[in-house]
Amino acid sequence: MAAAAPPPAAALEQLSKTKMFGGHNLRFRHQSASLGCPMTFSLFLPASPASKLPVLYWLSGLTCTDENFIIKSGAQRAAAAHGVALVAPDTSPRGLNVEGEADSWDFGVGAGFYLNATNEKWKNWRMYDYVVKELPKVLTDNFEQLNTSCASIFGHSMGGHGALTIYLKNTDKYKSVSAFAPIANPINCPWGQKAFSNYLGTTKSEWEAKDDKFLAEQLLAGNFEEACKAAGAPLILRMQPGYDHSFFFIATFIDDHIAHHAQFLKSG
Amino acid sequence: MAAAAPPPAAALEQLSKTKMFGGHNLRFRHQSASLGCPMTFSLFLPASPASKLPVLYWLSGLTCTDENFIIKSGAQRAAAAHGVALVAPDTSPRGLNVEGEADSWDFGVGAGFYLNATNEKWKNWRMYDYVVKELPKVLTDNFEQLNTSCASIFGHSMGGHGALTIYLKNTDKYKSVSAFAPIANPINCPWGQKAFSNYLGTTKSEWEAKDDKFLAEQLLAGNFEEACKAAGAPLILRMQPGYDHSFFFIATFIDDHIAHHAQFLKSG
Repeated sequence: MAAAAPPPAAALEQLSKTKMFGGHNLRFRHQSASLGCPMTFSLFLPASPASKLPVLYWLSGLTCTDENFIIKSGAQRAAAAHGVALVAPDTSPRGLNVEGEADSWDFGVGAGFYLNATNEKWKNWRMYDYVVKELPKVLTDNFEQLNTSCASIFGHSMGGHGALTIYLKNTDKYKSVSAFAPIANPINCPWGQKAFSNYLGTTKSEWEAKDDKFLAEQLLAGNFEEACKAAGAPLILRMQPGYDHSFFFIATFIDDHIAHHAQFLKSG
Repeated sequence: MAAAAPPPAAALEQLSKTKMFGGHNLRFRHQSASLGCPMTFSLFLPASPASKLPVLYWLSGLTCTDENFIIKSGAQRAAAAHGVALVAPDTSPRGLNVEGEADSWDFGVGAGFYLNATNEKWKNWRMYDYVVKELPKVLTDNFEQLNTSCASIFGHSMGGHGALTIYLKNTDKYKSVSAFAPIANPINCPWGQKAFSNYLGTTKSEWEAKDDKFLAEQLLAGNFEEACKAAGAPLILRMQPGYDHSFFFIATFIDDHIAHHAQFLKSG
Protein backbone atom coordinates (compact mmCIF):
# COMPACT_ATOMS: atom_id res chain seq x y z
CA MET A 1 0.00 0.00 0.00
CA ALA A 2 1.05 3.54 -0.62
CA ALA A 3 1.91 5.57 2.47
CA ALA A 4 -0.80 7.90 3.70
CA ALA A 5 -0.40 11.48 2.50
CA PRO A 6 1.08 13.75 5.16
CA PRO A 7 -1.41 16.12 6.82
CA PRO A 8 -1.45 19.63 5.32
CA ALA A 9 1.32 21.76 6.77
CA ALA A 10 -0.95 24.41 8.14
CA ALA A 11 -4.25 22.80 8.97
CA LEU A 12 -6.31 25.38 10.80
CA GLU A 13 -8.97 24.68 13.38
CA GLN A 14 -11.49 27.52 13.58
CA LEU A 15 -12.31 28.26 17.22
CA SER A 16 -14.79 31.11 16.83
CA LYS A 17 -16.36 33.56 14.40
CA THR A 18 -18.14 36.76 15.42
CA LYS A 19 -19.47 39.52 13.22
CA MET A 20 -18.23 43.06 13.93
CA PHE A 21 -18.41 46.26 11.89
CA GLY A 22 -19.67 44.29 8.91
CA GLY A 23 -16.65 41.97 8.95
CA HIS A 24 -15.71 39.02 11.14
CA ASN A 25 -13.40 38.25 14.02
CA LEU A 26 -12.04 34.75 13.42
CA ARG A 27 -9.93 32.75 15.85
CA PHE A 28 -7.82 29.74 14.85
CA ARG A 29 -5.58 27.07 16.36
CA HIS A 30 -2.82 25.34 14.43
CA GLN A 31 0.30 23.28 15.12
CA SER A 32 3.30 25.61 14.89
CA ALA A 33 6.43 24.12 13.32
CA SER A 34 8.58 27.01 14.60
CA LEU A 35 7.46 26.67 18.20
CA GLY A 36 6.63 22.99 18.46
CA CYS A 37 3.25 23.50 20.07
CA PRO A 38 -0.32 24.43 19.14
CA MET A 39 -0.77 28.18 18.71
CA THR A 40 -3.83 30.38 18.45
CA PHE A 41 -4.18 33.56 16.47
CA SER A 42 -6.99 36.00 15.73
CA LEU A 43 -7.86 37.53 12.38
CA PHE A 44 -10.26 40.35 11.60
CA LEU A 45 -11.53 40.22 8.02
CA PRO A 46 -13.40 43.30 6.78
CA ALA A 47 -16.50 42.62 4.67
CA SER A 48 -16.26 41.26 1.13
CA PRO A 49 -13.35 43.17 -0.38
CA ALA A 50 -13.30 44.28 -4.00
CA SER A 51 -9.60 43.42 -4.13
CA LYS A 52 -7.28 41.44 -1.91
CA LEU A 53 -6.86 42.80 1.60
CA PRO A 54 -3.55 44.13 2.90
CA VAL A 55 -2.49 42.73 6.28
CA LEU A 56 -1.67 44.64 9.45
CA TYR A 57 0.01 42.54 12.17
CA TRP A 58 -0.54 43.44 15.83
CA LEU A 59 1.95 42.23 18.45
CA SER A 60 0.66 42.33 22.02
CA GLY A 61 2.41 43.04 25.30
CA LEU A 62 3.40 40.93 28.29
CA THR A 63 0.73 38.53 29.65
CA CYS A 64 -1.57 38.95 26.62
CA THR A 65 -2.95 36.25 24.35
CA ASP A 66 -4.26 36.87 20.83
CA GLU A 67 -7.60 37.87 22.30
CA ASN A 68 -6.89 41.03 24.32
CA PHE A 69 -6.46 43.20 21.24
CA ILE A 70 -9.58 41.81 19.57
CA ILE A 71 -11.74 42.39 22.66
CA LYS A 72 -10.42 45.70 23.98
CA SER A 73 -8.81 47.83 21.27
CA GLY A 74 -11.79 48.78 19.11
CA ALA A 75 -9.41 48.47 16.13
CA GLN A 76 -11.97 46.70 13.95
CA ARG A 77 -13.90 49.92 13.29
CA ALA A 78 -10.99 51.65 11.54
CA ALA A 79 -9.77 48.41 9.95
CA ALA A 80 -13.20 47.90 8.38
CA ALA A 81 -13.29 51.52 7.21
CA HIS A 82 -9.83 51.29 5.59
CA GLY A 83 -10.24 47.75 4.25
CA VAL A 84 -7.29 46.32 6.16
CA ALA A 85 -7.15 42.83 7.71
CA LEU A 86 -5.83 42.60 11.28
CA VAL A 87 -3.76 39.63 12.47
CA ALA A 88 -3.01 39.13 16.18
CA PRO A 89 -0.78 36.22 17.21
CA ASP A 90 -0.32 34.92 20.74
CA THR A 91 2.72 36.19 22.68
CA SER A 92 4.68 32.98 23.32
CA PRO A 93 4.58 29.19 23.04
CA ARG A 94 2.26 27.60 25.59
CA GLY A 95 1.78 24.21 27.15
CA LEU A 96 5.35 22.98 26.69
CA ASN A 97 5.88 22.57 30.44
CA VAL A 98 9.39 23.97 30.42
CA GLU A 99 10.52 24.19 34.04
CA GLY A 100 9.80 27.67 35.37
CA GLU A 101 7.96 28.84 32.23
CA ALA A 102 5.07 30.29 34.23
CA ASP A 103 6.93 31.44 37.34
CA SER A 104 6.87 35.14 36.45
CA TRP A 105 4.53 37.32 34.44
CA ASP A 106 7.33 39.02 32.51
CA PHE A 107 9.26 35.97 31.31
CA GLY A 108 8.39 32.62 29.73
CA VAL A 109 4.71 32.03 28.96
CA GLY A 110 3.09 35.22 27.65
CA ALA A 111 6.49 36.87 27.27
CA GLY A 112 8.17 35.70 24.09
CA PHE A 113 9.70 39.08 23.26
CA TYR A 114 9.45 38.26 19.52
CA LEU A 115 12.98 36.88 19.36
CA ASN A 116 14.56 33.49 18.64
CA ALA A 117 16.01 32.15 21.89
CA THR A 118 19.48 30.63 21.67
CA ASN A 119 19.55 29.20 25.19
CA GLU A 120 18.86 25.44 24.80
CA LYS A 121 16.33 25.44 27.62
CA TRP A 122 14.13 27.96 25.79
CA LYS A 123 14.70 26.56 22.31
CA ASN A 124 10.98 26.59 21.53
CA TRP A 125 10.79 30.34 22.09
CA ARG A 126 11.14 31.34 18.43
CA MET A 127 8.48 34.01 18.16
CA TYR A 128 10.58 35.96 15.65
CA ASP A 129 10.44 33.08 13.17
CA TYR A 130 6.80 32.46 13.96
CA VAL A 131 5.73 36.04 13.26
CA VAL A 132 8.07 36.81 10.36
CA LYS A 133 8.05 33.47 8.52
CA GLU A 134 5.52 30.88 9.66
CA LEU A 135 2.42 32.96 10.27
CA PRO A 136 2.52 34.82 6.93
CA LYS A 137 2.78 31.43 5.16
CA VAL A 138 -0.14 30.05 7.14
CA LEU A 139 -2.18 33.06 6.07
CA THR A 140 -1.10 32.83 2.43
CA ASP A 141 -1.94 29.11 2.31
CA ASN A 142 -5.36 29.50 3.90
CA PHE A 143 -6.85 32.89 2.98
CA GLU A 144 -6.93 33.71 -0.71
CA GLN A 145 -8.60 37.03 0.08
CA LEU A 146 -5.39 38.27 1.76
CA ASN A 147 -2.49 39.93 -0.03
CA THR A 148 0.18 38.92 2.48
CA SER A 149 2.91 40.55 0.41
CA CYS A 150 1.37 43.91 1.31
CA ALA A 151 1.84 44.04 5.10
CA SER A 152 2.61 46.39 7.96
CA ILE A 153 3.24 45.77 11.65
CA PHE A 154 2.50 47.46 14.98
CA GLY A 155 2.25 46.56 18.63
CA HIS A 156 2.21 47.55 22.29
CA SER A 157 4.93 47.50 24.95
CA MET A 158 6.78 44.19 24.45
CA GLY A 159 4.88 43.99 21.16
CA GLY A 160 6.05 47.50 20.29
CA HIS A 161 9.61 46.24 20.75
CA GLY A 162 8.69 43.30 18.54
CA ALA A 163 7.20 45.46 15.81
CA LEU A 164 10.16 47.86 15.73
CA THR A 165 12.83 45.18 15.67
CA ILE A 166 11.01 42.99 13.16
CA TYR A 167 10.38 45.93 10.86
CA LEU A 168 13.96 47.17 11.01
CA LYS A 169 15.28 43.74 10.03
CA ASN A 170 12.73 43.20 7.30
CA THR A 171 12.02 46.48 5.56
CA ASP A 172 11.40 44.42 2.41
CA LYS A 173 8.51 42.57 4.11
CA TYR A 174 6.65 45.44 5.82
CA LYS A 175 5.49 48.77 4.40
CA SER A 176 5.35 50.61 7.75
CA VAL A 177 5.70 50.22 11.51
CA SER A 178 4.25 51.88 14.60
CA ALA A 179 4.17 51.17 18.31
CA PHE A 180 2.26 52.10 21.43
CA ALA A 181 4.50 52.64 24.45
CA PRO A 182 7.16 50.27 23.13
CA ILE A 183 9.97 48.79 25.15
CA ALA A 184 12.33 50.89 23.07
CA ASN A 185 15.73 50.05 24.53
CA PRO A 186 15.48 46.55 26.02
CA ILE A 187 19.13 45.93 26.72
CA ASN A 188 19.08 48.84 29.17
CA CYS A 189 15.83 48.07 31.08
CA PRO A 190 14.98 45.33 33.60
CA TRP A 191 12.36 43.59 31.42
CA GLY A 192 14.72 43.36 28.48
CA GLN A 193 17.72 42.32 30.57
CA LYS A 194 15.73 39.54 32.21
CA ALA A 195 14.41 38.28 28.89
CA PHE A 196 17.65 38.57 26.93
CA SER A 197 19.92 37.05 29.58
CA ASN A 198 17.64 34.02 29.85
CA TYR A 199 16.66 33.57 26.21
CA LEU A 200 20.00 34.56 24.69
CA GLY A 201 22.55 33.98 27.43
CA THR A 202 24.64 36.44 29.42
CA THR A 203 27.06 37.35 26.64
CA LYS A 204 25.85 40.86 25.92
CA SER A 205 27.36 40.91 22.44
CA GLU A 206 24.74 38.26 21.59
CA TRP A 207 22.04 40.77 22.49
CA GLU A 208 23.22 43.31 19.95
CA ALA A 209 21.44 41.34 17.27
CA LYS A 210 18.27 42.67 18.91
CA ASP A 211 17.16 46.15 19.61
CA ASP A 212 13.51 47.89 22.69
CA LYS A 213 4.59 53.92 34.60
CA PHE A 214 7.29 51.86 32.52
CA LEU A 215 8.37 54.80 30.45
CA ALA A 216 11.36 55.94 32.50
CA GLU A 217 12.51 52.55 33.72
CA GLN A 218 11.34 50.07 31.08
CA LEU A 219 10.35 51.73 27.82
CA LEU A 220 13.15 54.28 27.36
CA ALA A 221 11.58 56.03 24.36
CA GLY A 222 14.09 58.86 24.63
CA ASN A 223 16.98 56.54 23.85
CA PHE A 224 15.13 55.27 20.80
CA GLU A 225 14.52 58.82 19.63
CA GLU A 226 18.21 59.62 19.90
CA ALA A 227 19.14 56.45 18.04
CA CYS A 228 16.79 57.36 15.19
CA LYS A 229 18.27 60.85 15.02
CA ALA A 230 21.80 59.46 14.95
CA ALA A 231 20.85 57.02 12.18
CA GLY A 232 18.87 59.57 10.19
CA ALA A 233 15.78 57.33 10.41
CA PRO A 234 12.40 59.10 10.12
CA LEU A 235 10.40 58.94 13.39
CA ILE A 236 7.12 60.44 14.56
CA LEU A 237 7.31 60.31 18.38
CA ARG A 238 4.12 61.40 20.17
CA MET A 239 3.95 61.70 23.97
CA GLN A 240 0.38 61.51 25.37
CA PRO A 241 0.30 62.96 28.91
CA GLY A 242 -1.97 61.32 31.46
CA TYR A 243 -2.54 58.03 29.66
CA ASP A 244 -1.53 54.80 31.34
CA HIS A 245 -0.19 51.57 29.84
CA SER A 246 -3.61 49.98 29.29
CA PHE A 247 -5.92 49.27 26.38
CA PHE A 248 -7.80 52.48 27.27
CA PHE A 249 -4.71 54.28 25.96
CA ILE A 250 -4.48 52.02 22.91
CA ALA A 251 -8.18 52.40 22.06
CA THR A 252 -7.85 56.18 22.20
CA PHE A 253 -5.20 56.33 19.50
CA ILE A 254 -5.75 53.13 17.50
CA ASP A 255 -7.55 55.00 14.70
CA ASP A 256 -4.51 57.24 14.15
CA HIS A 257 -2.20 54.25 13.87
CA ILE A 258 -4.42 52.32 11.47
CA ALA A 259 -4.88 55.40 9.27
CA HIS A 260 -1.08 55.78 9.24
CA HIS A 261 -0.55 52.22 8.07
CA ALA A 262 -3.42 52.34 5.59
CA GLN A 263 -1.75 55.08 3.56
CA PHE A 264 1.32 52.89 3.07
CA LEU A 265 -0.65 49.69 2.52
CA LYS A 266 -2.86 51.26 -0.12
CA SER A 267 -0.06 52.90 -2.03
CA GLY A 268 2.01 49.72 -1.74
CA MET B 1 -21.12 66.73 73.77
CA ALA B 2 -22.98 67.12 70.55
CA ALA B 3 -23.58 63.92 68.68
CA ALA B 4 -21.15 63.33 65.91
CA ALA B 5 -22.43 64.39 62.52
CA PRO B 6 -23.67 61.45 60.47
CA PRO B 7 -21.38 60.41 57.70
CA PRO B 8 -22.27 61.86 54.32
CA ALA B 9 -25.05 59.86 52.72
CA ALA B 10 -23.14 59.05 49.62
CA ALA B 11 -19.47 58.86 50.50
CA LEU B 12 -17.71 57.60 47.42
CA GLU B 13 -14.49 55.61 47.37
CA GLN B 14 -12.65 56.04 44.07
CA LEU B 15 -11.28 52.69 42.91
CA SER B 16 -9.58 53.71 39.67
CA LYS B 17 -9.07 56.50 37.15
CA THR B 18 -7.85 55.96 33.57
CA LYS B 19 -7.58 58.49 30.78
CA MET B 20 -9.37 57.67 27.53
CA PHE B 21 -10.31 59.83 24.53
CA GLY B 22 -9.26 62.94 26.45
CA GLY B 23 -11.66 62.18 29.31
CA HIS B 24 -11.50 59.72 32.18
CA ASN B 25 -12.98 56.38 33.18
CA LEU B 26 -13.67 56.56 36.90
CA ARG B 27 -14.77 53.68 39.10
CA PHE B 28 -16.37 54.10 42.53
CA ARG B 29 -17.64 52.05 45.45
CA HIS B 30 -20.31 53.29 47.84
CA GLN B 31 -22.71 51.89 50.41
CA SER B 32 -26.13 51.57 48.77
CA ALA B 33 -29.11 52.37 50.96
CA SER B 34 -31.54 50.77 48.48
CA LEU B 35 -29.66 47.46 48.30
CA GLY B 36 -28.04 47.27 51.73
CA CYS B 37 -24.59 46.44 50.42
CA PRO B 38 -21.56 48.14 48.88
CA MET B 39 -22.02 48.79 45.17
CA THR B 40 -19.59 49.75 42.42
CA PHE B 41 -20.34 51.88 39.38
CA SER B 42 -18.30 53.28 36.51
CA LEU B 43 -18.46 56.79 35.10
CA PHE B 44 -16.90 58.16 31.92
CA LEU B 45 -16.41 61.92 32.08
CA PRO B 46 -15.49 63.64 28.81
CA ALA B 47 -12.81 66.34 29.04
CA SER B 48 -13.48 69.70 30.72
CA PRO B 49 -16.95 70.63 29.50
CA ALA B 50 -17.97 74.21 28.71
CA SER B 51 -21.38 73.50 30.29
CA LYS B 52 -22.73 70.77 32.51
CA LEU B 53 -22.69 67.32 31.00
CA PRO B 54 -25.88 65.37 30.26
CA VAL B 55 -25.93 61.81 31.57
CA LEU B 56 -26.47 58.59 29.61
CA TYR B 57 -27.10 55.50 31.79
CA TRP B 58 -26.01 52.08 30.50
CA LEU B 59 -27.61 48.96 31.98
CA SER B 60 -25.68 45.74 31.36
CA GLY B 61 -26.87 42.19 30.76
CA LEU B 62 -26.76 38.97 32.77
CA THR B 63 -23.43 38.15 34.49
CA CYS B 64 -21.92 41.60 33.85
CA THR B 65 -20.48 44.02 36.39
CA ASP B 66 -20.11 47.75 35.83
CA GLU B 67 -16.78 47.07 34.05
CA ASN B 68 -17.73 45.06 30.93
CA PHE B 69 -19.21 48.04 29.13
CA ILE B 70 -16.27 50.29 30.01
CA ILE B 71 -13.70 47.74 28.78
CA LYS B 72 -15.43 46.30 25.69
CA SER B 73 -17.95 48.68 24.15
CA GLY B 74 -15.74 51.47 22.83
CA ALA B 75 -18.55 53.85 23.82
CA GLN B 76 -16.16 56.46 25.21
CA ARG B 77 -15.12 57.62 21.72
CA ALA B 78 -18.61 58.78 20.75
CA ALA B 79 -19.43 59.96 24.28
CA ALA B 80 -16.34 62.20 24.23
CA ALA B 81 -17.26 63.50 20.77
CA HIS B 82 -20.83 64.32 21.81
CA GLY B 83 -19.98 65.62 25.30
CA VAL B 84 -22.12 63.07 27.11
CA ALA B 85 -21.21 61.41 30.43
CA LEU B 86 -21.69 57.62 30.64
CA VAL B 87 -22.82 55.92 33.85
CA ALA B 88 -22.68 52.12 34.20
CA PRO B 89 -24.00 50.53 37.41
CA ASP B 90 -23.44 46.95 38.49
CA THR B 91 -26.23 44.44 37.71
CA SER B 92 -27.30 43.30 41.19
CA PRO B 93 -26.47 43.45 44.88
CA ARG B 94 -23.40 41.40 45.77
CA GLY B 95 -21.89 39.87 48.89
CA LEU B 96 -25.15 39.52 50.82
CA ASN B 97 -24.83 35.71 51.05
CA VAL B 98 -28.49 35.05 50.38
CA GLU B 99 -28.88 31.27 50.09
CA GLY B 100 -28.65 30.25 46.41
CA GLU B 101 -27.79 33.74 45.18
CA ALA B 102 -24.90 32.45 43.03
CA ASP B 103 -26.32 29.05 42.03
CA SER B 104 -27.21 30.08 38.48
CA TRP B 105 -25.86 32.60 36.02
CA ASP B 106 -29.26 33.97 35.09
CA PHE B 107 -30.69 34.62 38.55
CA GLY B 108 -29.48 36.24 41.77
CA VAL B 109 -26.00 37.75 41.69
CA GLY B 110 -25.40 39.46 38.35
CA ALA B 111 -29.08 39.18 37.44
CA GLY B 112 -31.08 41.90 39.17
CA PHE B 113 -33.42 42.51 36.21
CA TYR B 114 -33.74 46.17 37.25
CA LEU B 115 -36.86 45.53 39.32
CA ASN B 116 -37.82 45.77 43.00
CA ALA B 117 -38.28 42.24 44.36
CA THR B 118 -41.31 41.66 46.54
CA ASN B 119 -40.38 38.15 47.69
CA GLU B 120 -39.02 38.56 51.23
CA LYS B 121 -36.01 36.34 50.54
CA TRP B 122 -34.82 38.69 47.77
CA LYS B 123 -35.77 41.91 49.53
CA ASN B 124 -32.37 43.47 48.82
CA TRP B 125 -32.85 43.07 45.07
CA ARG B 126 -34.14 46.61 44.44
CA MET B 127 -32.21 47.55 41.33
CA TYR B 128 -35.12 49.63 40.04
CA ASP B 129 -34.90 51.97 43.01
CA TYR B 130 -31.12 51.95 42.85
CA VAL B 131 -30.98 52.98 39.19
CA VAL B 132 -33.96 55.35 39.13
CA LYS B 133 -33.61 57.04 42.53
CA GLU B 134 -30.43 56.38 44.47
CA LEU B 135 -27.76 56.52 41.76
CA PRO B 136 -28.94 59.82 40.25
CA LYS B 137 -28.82 61.38 43.74
CA VAL B 138 -25.33 60.03 44.35
CA LEU B 139 -24.24 61.61 41.09
CA THR B 140 -25.94 64.91 41.82
CA ASP B 141 -24.37 65.08 45.27
CA ASN B 142 -20.87 64.30 44.10
CA PHE B 143 -20.36 65.60 40.58
CA GLU B 144 -21.20 69.23 40.05
CA GLN B 145 -20.12 68.95 36.40
CA LEU B 146 -23.12 66.68 35.70
CA ASN B 147 -26.61 67.84 34.79
CA THR B 148 -28.46 64.80 36.11
CA SER B 149 -31.82 66.31 35.23
CA CYS B 150 -30.87 65.87 31.57
CA ALA B 151 -30.60 62.11 31.24
CA SER B 152 -31.25 59.20 28.85
CA ILE B 153 -30.97 55.46 29.30
CA PHE B 154 -29.93 52.41 27.25
CA GLY B 155 -28.78 48.86 27.80
CA HIS B 156 -28.21 45.32 26.53
CA SER B 157 -30.27 42.13 26.91
CA MET B 158 -31.44 42.11 30.55
CA GLY B 159 -30.26 45.73 30.64
CA GLY B 160 -32.29 46.47 27.52
CA HIS B 161 -35.33 45.20 29.41
CA GLY B 162 -34.28 47.45 32.28
CA ALA B 163 -33.86 50.52 30.08
CA LEU B 164 -37.20 50.04 28.32
CA THR B 165 -39.21 49.45 31.49
CA ILE B 166 -37.51 52.21 33.46
CA TYR B 167 -38.00 54.69 30.64
CA LEU B 168 -41.65 53.83 30.11
CA LYS B 169 -42.39 54.39 33.81
CA ASN B 170 -40.37 57.60 34.05
CA THR B 171 -40.74 59.56 30.84
CA ASP B 172 -40.35 62.68 32.98
CA LYS B 173 -36.86 61.60 34.07
CA TYR B 174 -35.35 60.41 30.76
CA LYS B 175 -35.23 62.15 27.38
CA SER B 176 -34.80 58.99 25.30
CA VAL B 177 -34.29 55.22 25.47
CA SER B 178 -32.63 52.58 23.32
CA ALA B 179 -31.67 48.94 23.70
CA PHE B 180 -29.39 46.31 22.16
CA ALA B 181 -31.05 42.89 21.84
CA PRO B 182 -33.37 43.56 24.79
CA ILE B 183 -35.35 40.97 26.67
CA ALA B 184 -38.47 42.57 25.25
CA ASN B 185 -41.23 40.35 26.58
CA PRO B 186 -39.93 38.86 29.82
CA ILE B 187 -43.16 37.35 31.12
CA ASN B 188 -43.23 35.08 28.05
CA CYS B 189 -39.61 33.88 28.05
CA PRO B 190 -37.69 31.51 30.34
CA TRP B 191 -35.27 34.13 31.72
CA GLY B 192 -38.06 36.50 32.65
CA GLN B 193 -40.28 33.79 34.06
CA LYS B 194 -37.46 32.49 36.30
CA ALA B 195 -36.62 35.98 37.52
CA PHE B 196 -40.16 37.21 38.02
CA SER B 197 -41.47 34.08 39.74
CA ASN B 198 -38.62 34.21 42.25
CA TYR B 199 -38.30 37.94 42.77
CA LEU B 200 -42.01 38.74 42.57
CA GLY B 201 -43.79 35.50 43.43
CA THR B 202 -45.88 33.19 41.26
CA THR B 203 -48.95 35.43 41.05
CA LYS B 204 -48.66 36.50 37.45
CA SER B 205 -50.81 39.57 37.97
CA GLU B 206 -47.96 40.88 40.11
CA TRP B 207 -45.70 40.66 37.06
CA GLU B 208 -47.86 42.95 35.00
CA ALA B 209 -46.28 45.88 36.73
CA LYS B 210 -43.18 44.93 34.74
CA ASP B 211 -42.91 44.72 31.17
CA ASP B 212 -36.85 39.68 25.52
CA LYS B 213 -29.43 33.15 19.62
CA PHE B 214 -31.83 34.37 22.47
CA LEU B 215 -34.00 36.29 20.01
CA ALA B 216 -36.68 33.69 19.34
CA GLU B 217 -36.84 32.14 22.79
CA GLN B 218 -35.70 34.87 25.18
CA LEU B 219 -35.74 38.34 23.60
CA LEU B 220 -39.08 38.31 21.73
CA ALA B 221 -38.54 41.60 19.95
CA GLY B 222 -41.50 40.92 17.65
CA ASN B 223 -43.92 40.99 20.55
CA PHE B 224 -42.48 44.31 21.67
CA GLU B 225 -42.88 45.71 18.17
CA GLU B 226 -46.54 44.70 18.10
CA ALA B 227 -47.14 46.20 21.52
CA CYS B 228 -45.64 49.51 20.40
CA LYS B 229 -47.83 49.50 17.30
CA ALA B 230 -50.92 48.78 19.37
CA ALA B 231 -50.05 51.58 21.77
CA GLY B 232 -49.08 54.06 19.05
CA ALA B 233 -45.61 54.40 20.60
CA PRO B 234 -42.81 55.44 18.21
CA LEU B 235 -40.25 52.69 17.73
CA ILE B 236 -37.18 52.28 15.54
CA LEU B 237 -36.57 48.53 15.39
CA ARG B 238 -33.39 47.50 13.57
CA MET B 239 -32.53 43.84 12.93
CA GLN B 240 -28.82 43.22 12.28
CA PRO B 241 -28.36 39.86 10.57
CA GLY B 242 -25.35 37.78 11.54
CA TYR B 243 -24.42 39.53 14.77
CA ASP B 244 -24.37 37.56 18.00
CA HIS B 245 -25.28 38.60 21.56
CA SER B 246 -21.78 39.82 22.48
CA PHE B 247 -19.99 43.12 22.95
CA PHE B 248 -18.70 42.77 19.34
CA PHE B 249 -22.29 43.47 18.32
CA ILE B 250 -22.64 46.30 20.81
CA ALA B 251 -19.35 47.94 19.77
CA THR B 252 -20.44 47.86 16.12
CA PHE B 253 -23.55 49.94 16.73
CA ILE B 254 -22.74 51.90 19.90
CA ASP B 255 -21.99 55.08 17.93
CA ASP B 256 -25.47 55.06 16.40
CA HIS B 257 -27.09 54.73 19.79
CA ILE B 258 -25.05 57.48 21.42
CA ALA B 259 -25.72 59.84 18.49
CA HIS B 260 -29.42 59.06 18.87
CA HIS B 261 -29.42 59.97 22.54
CA ALA B 262 -27.20 63.02 22.05
CA GLN B 263 -29.80 64.72 19.86
CA PHE B 264 -32.35 64.47 22.65
CA LEU B 265 -29.90 65.33 25.44
CA LYS B 266 -28.67 68.43 23.68
CA SER B 267 -32.08 69.80 22.82
CA GLY B 268 -33.32 68.91 26.33
